Amino acid sequence: CGWEVVDNHHLERVFRFKNFVEALDYVNRVGALAEEEQHHPDISLSWGKVVLTLFTHKIDGLSESDIVFAAKIDRMK
Amino acid sequence: CGWEVVDNHHLERVFRFKNFVEALDYVNRVGALAEEEQHHPDISLSWGKVVLTLFTHKIDGLSESDIVFAAKIDRMK
Repeated sequence: CGWEVVDNHHLERVFRFKNFVEALDYVNRVGALAEEEQHHPDISLSWGKVVLTLFTHKIDGLSESDIVFAAKIDRMK
Repeated sequence: CGWEVVDNHHLERVFRFKNFVEALDYVNRVGALAEEEQHHPDISLSWGKVVLTLFTHKIDGLSESDIVFAAKIDRMK
C-alpha cells in the first residue's frame, strides 16, 4: 500500500523492515529529509516497522506541502 | 512525570526536547540501548517530543524486563 488519507486530516504510510536497526536507519533518513525541508512528520518506530504521519500543524490538516513531502519520501526509497 | 503504567499493559513515558534533531538524537540513543539489550520499545517521534512505550510482546503485557529496561533508560538520560 501507498499513502492513505486518514480522516481527511493526514497522510499515513506504513514501511516494513527486516529488523529494528533497518527501521531505525530509515527513520534517520526520513529525519534528514525532514530537517532539509523543514517539514517534520510524526514518526512511529517499532521492531521492523515505521509509520509516517504527515499533516500541516498550522492548519491541523493537509496542505499541498504534505503531498510534496510524501512524494519526496517516495523518491528517497 | 516519569513512567506511567497504562491499561495495566505497558509503560509509557514522554520526553521533551528543544527541536526535532535533539529528539531524533535521543531516539538513536534509545535505539542503541534497545539493540544492546535486545528489548525494543515502541518509539513515537515528533517535533521536540519522544514517547516510549514498553511492553513484552511475547505475553502482550508487562514483565520484569520492561521495568529493568525503563530503569536503564532513566540511567541513560
